[in-house]
Amino acid sequence: MTITTPLTRMLGVRHPILLAAMDLVADARLTQVVSEAGGFGILGGGYGDAAWLGRELPKLVEARAASPFRFGVGFITWGLARQPELLDLALAAKPDAVWLSFGDPEPFAGKIKAAGARLICQVQSVEMARDAVAKGADIIVAQGAEAGGHAASRGTFALVPAVVDAVADRAIVVAAGGVADGRGLAAALMLGAQGVVLGTRLYASLEAAGHDAAKERIVAASGDDTVRGLIFDISRQNVWPAPFTGRCLVNAHAERWIGREIALMQAIATEAPRYQAAREAGDFDIAAVIAGEAAALVHEVLPAATIVAGMVEKAEALLANGQGGSFSFGAG
Amino acid sequence: MTITTPLTRMLGVRHPILLAAMDLVADARLTQVVSEAGGFGILGGGYGDAAWLGRELPKLVEARAASPFRFGVGFITWGLARQPELLDLALAAKPDAVWLSFGDPEPFAGKIKAAGARLICQVQSVEMARDAVAKGADIIVAQGAEAGGHAASRGTFALVPAVVDAVADRAIVVAAGGVADGRGLAAALMLGAQGVVLGTRLYASLEAAGHDAAKERIVAASGDDTVRGLIFDISRQNVWPAPFTGRCLVNAHAERWIGREIALMQAIATEAPRYQAAREAGDFDIAAVIAGEAAALVHEVLPAATIVAGMVEKAEALLANGQGGSFSFGAG
Ligand SMILES: Cc1cc2nc3c(=O)[nH]c(=O)nc-3n(C[C@H](O)[C@H](O)[C@H](O)COP(=O)(O)O)c2cc1C
Ligand SMILES: Cc1cc2nc3c(=O)[nH]c(=O)nc-3n(C[C@H](O)[C@H](O)[C@H](O)COP(=O)(O)O)c2cc1C
Repeated sequence: MTITTPLTRMLGVRHPILLAAMDLVADARLTQVVSEAGGFGILGGGYGDAAWLGRELPKLVEARAASPFRFGVGFITWGLARQPELLDLALAAKPDAVWLSFGDPEPFAGKIKAAGARLICQVQSVEMARDAVAKGADIIVAQGAEAGGHAASRGTFALVPAVVDAVADRAIVVAAGGVADGRGLAAALMLGAQGVVLGTRLYASLEAAGHDAAKERIVAASGDDTVRGLIFDISRQNVWPAPFTGRCLVNAHAERWIGREIALMQAIATEAPRYQAAREAGDFDIAAVIAGEAAALVHEVLPAATIVAGMVEKAEALLANGQGGSFSFGAG
Repeated sequence: MTITTPLTRMLGVRHPILLAAMDLVADARLTQVVSEAGGFGILGGGYGDAAWLGRELPKLVEARAASPFRFGVGFITWGLARQPELLDLALAAKPDAVWLSFGDPEPFAGKIKAAGARLICQVQSVEMARDAVAKGADIIVAQGAEAGGHAASRGTFALVPAVVDAVADRAIVVAAGGVADGRGLAAALMLGAQGVVLGTRLYASLEAAGHDAAKERIVAASGDDTVRGLIFDISRQNVWPAPFTGRCLVNAHAERWIGREIALMQAIATEAPRYQAAREAGDFDIAAVIAGEAAALVHEVLPAATIVAGMVEKAEALLANGQGGSFSFGAG
């Protein structure tokens, strides 16, 4: 039993699993290990930090020269729009794909495709999916609201098949938001997706760039204890354009301010420096751990390769269940 | 290929598909046709209207005497708590199960089980799932926020496996919220559920009690155009306890008031009668069509039996795909 899909064929990878382009967390190391494990690593270019990209991209180029693998580079689209020259920096590394999320891909699509890279667009509604495909997206990531980090409001379960129905004749559809194990991979395939994106699960991997204390909080979380909102964006003075809000683990800072966003803005002269200091100190009672509802399904910090392999093995077993001609679920 | 699960065995039905206990919409007729199609019909007792129950329950009892089928009766738990005597009315009809959602099942669990009925509890978080199982639930419906009607905030995709991990050793878990076709049924099974609940999809059935104009709006909706909030609860002067909010199709009334809940409350002396008149007239520019994000997947008003049969057939085909030993998704 192997799982092959148009996604694995298009990207030239073994498994239909993409590393989410997580700002700072998905650095060159995590990108490389996910790709070497048979998935598709995507460097988390985020808002676009030229110094960080100038450090991480050469690592990937060098490692790939030694032993080939595929990889992508991701940007927050409205961030890239402020520094469009960063796309040239990324394309110079000859990535196999560029990931754009949260904004209009049009100004960048032509250049990306001319460079021979695939265009992956993460979208949050059927309308955005249609728009991204019209502008040249090869791969559409349908992202549900349970996702860690920024997203909009539709849930993964009904969004994925709706996006498939809208654009699957012209693009490959991948599911993001709430996928953390083989059950999620198998379910996404049943919904009509050709693969999945992993954020939260791979944040809690050994190789992810991030505080151990943050990873441990993801392991400890039940999934009921995340919240989508603006508290953390207000606190770090980086409020996103509508309709995007951020999902993080609930902590003392969130509990203090949820529902009191205006009061937080009014107190920002003291709260912003306090928040910044907490981020630097790794004090996650104040600083946000960006994570999604899939945190419920994360019980251990593991090597990324173990996560990818375990997920594929479990999904294959689930999908093979029907081979006896009668599908029977559960022991009862 | 047939799909059998502990749910089908426990309820004695052919297919792992439950009709959501939709207030007023799931009347005796819809309940009966879903059950006769091999699913499990559940009468939508809602907040508890003695006259309505006194009319609908005898129809089921009579029909079942003529030709046996299984059925359940559902209540909004906090509504039932105000008129606990309605449970006796329901149990007198000898339902195979009682569905409780939104509130503490404890005061009712003993009586339900003593009457030989199964206890189905719809929950919206892992914590509520554990609590309901501790209080005697046989079947846990894990309801995601994409659901039509009232629900809380967690998404179906990550909630279902988390609830399975928490309680599947003691109860059967069923998925609700966003399921509308065979893809959703197959995906729910992959996530570890033993069956699914259909609300929105069966609202848009021929037999559902409800305005044709409401059903046609569900057919026309894209799925992007629903909203979860309090506008409609405020307008009909029925604001629910936290954490529950309602999901409906966006209409002119919603667009006018979303984000202006306080202003709506301040205008309630004129808005409440206006809203009530619109409900009575079937004016769905003002009155809410209660529906979920699965509306995107509903393209036609169909007989309920056709919906159930089509869903099972599609799910079986998806699940049988792996029988060649290699799972390959998509044509590309
Ligand atoms: C720590 C973290 C950082 C993220 N940063 C970005 C980002 O910079 N750009 C982006 O497109 N998505 C970002 N996301 C969202 C992911 O692309 C993806 O949609 C999400 O992680 C999928 O849901 P999951 O967390 O349940 O796997 C981030 C997610 C997390 C958890
Ligand atoms: C018109 C309508 C009325 C509903 N009324 C009730 C109700 O009275 N009691 C209840 O427990 N759930 C009610 N629900 C929620 C359903 O139980 C179920 O969770 C939901 O419909 C599942 O999501 P779906 O709409 O995507 O199928 C209602 C849903 C709809 C669409």
